[in-house]
Amino acid sequence: MIYGKNPCKEILTTDKPIMKAYLEKGTNGDLLALLSKRGTDIVQLEKNDFNGRFSGNNQGVAFEMAEYRLLTLEEAVKKHETIKNPLYLMLDGITDPHNLGAIIRSAEAGGVNAIILPKNRSVGITGTVAKVASGAIEHMDLIEVTNLTQTVEKLKKLRFWIVGTDMDATKNHTEIDVQTPLCIIIGSEGKGIGRLLGESCDYLVKIPMVGKVNSLNASVSAGIVIFDILRQKGF
Amino acid sequence: MIYGKNPCKEILTTDKPIMKAYLEKGTNGDLLALLSKRGTDIVQLEKNDFNGRFSGNNQGVAFEMAEYRLLTLEEAVKKHETIKNPLYLMLDGITDPHNLGAIIRSAEAGGVNAIILPKNRSVGITGTVAKVASGAIEHMDLIEVTNLTQTVEKLKKLRFWIVGTDMDATKNHTEIDVQTPLCIIIGSEGKGIGRLLGESCDYLVKIPMVGKVNSLNASVSAGIVIFDILRQKGF
Repeated sequence: MIYGKNPCKEILTTDKPIMKAYLEKGTNGDLLALLSKRGTDIVQLEKNDFNGRFSGNNQGVAFEMAEYRLLTLEEAVKKHETIKNPLYLMLDGITDPHNLGAIIRSAEAGGVNAIILPKNRSVGITGTVAKVASGAIEHMDLIEVTNLTQTVEKLKKLRFWIVGTDMDATKNHTEIDVQTPLCIIIGSEGKGIGRLLGESCDYLVKIPMVGKVNSLNASVSAGIVIFDILRQKGF
Repeated sequence: MIYGKNPCKEILTTDKPIMKAYLEKGTNGDLLALLSKRGTDIVQLEKNDFNGRFSGNNQGVAFEMAEYRLLTLEEAVKKHETIKNPLYLMLDGITDPHNLGAIIRSAEAGGVNAIILPKNRSVGITGTVAKVASGAIEHMDLIEVTNLTQTVEKLKKLRFWIVGTDMDATKNHTEIDVQTPLCIIIGSEGKGIGRLLGESCDYLVKIPMVGKVNSLNASVSAGIVIFDILRQKGF
């Protein structure tokens, strides 16, 4: 929780995910306007209720922040060293917060151990991401890295197999060898995985489709691949 | 395409999906305001360009509508009678247009033959639905029915097996018998499938999960089930 006018104002200059904002009725009109614009869940409480709930010098405002762990690759690998065959997901160019939130949610439910995000070329962990992830963000290890291709090389040295998803792959997503440490790379809907990153994969897989339009939402693609890996590993 | 001030105004009183609106620059300010509010893609053209593109008495406005087929159950069944084992999807209580659009998209790519929607208790086929479906709506048979439970009974007489999705099911989604006409029922994220409808299913399946939060976005759930059926049928 963050309390007080200035700390809360400071948060509003960033895109850190606010899960819920509590305001004492009739106070902090400026913050109320900013929060509404941002689409944050706002709870307005009478003075007595507010002070009953939040003690101390809070100036009529308190933010409940989403908790999430942003790890380095090294920290995550160390944390997961007792897991036999860890499953990482790497996201390349996912810029829509709804997609990122839904992917975190599916990943948490489907047994992914960590999600690797590029520092500068991804959507931030905003309130929308946290909301769409429905609480899953607090149970998922997020790894932030500066360079995805270099990260792939590091993972290979750690015996991870790197599998990219690509519409033009010859192998199907159901043919992934899951009995090994694995990093699955999901690209954006329009552009797919970057060329260099695609070339650094051990192999590529596609989700076979049988329709006329044959494209999937990025979060649906991620869900299908994650849950087929889980099927293969055994539920 | 719909042309002219009054026909286009009429469309704007409904939620029919407008894929793109063409306006002659400087005309139809009232329509422009309504279209912006609705979030429709708007193309403004100079008078000459507009008249070059759209001939006749168009009064500077033309709407490109999404084409989709709204069938009765009987029409759909007749249409699909040469398909050996048709696959239908029934949606119960999906109210979010993004979810409906993404489900139509996955269904088209995954070999679903028709989607059954309840007339009064579902989201309409709006422009947002059509946009999120990314063109898939024009290749998907949509069936509108007044009563889902009665529709299930009709489908059973037509040798369809009715499979509901439910978190508390004992069977997994990977154990669906796919070598038969099949209707899969997807419920809403919060409420699942209605009680009566759930009881009318031949059996229920769940997507097994291994995390702490263990909930999926409705369109992700639908995608996972659809593509596992496709895997079982053979790509």
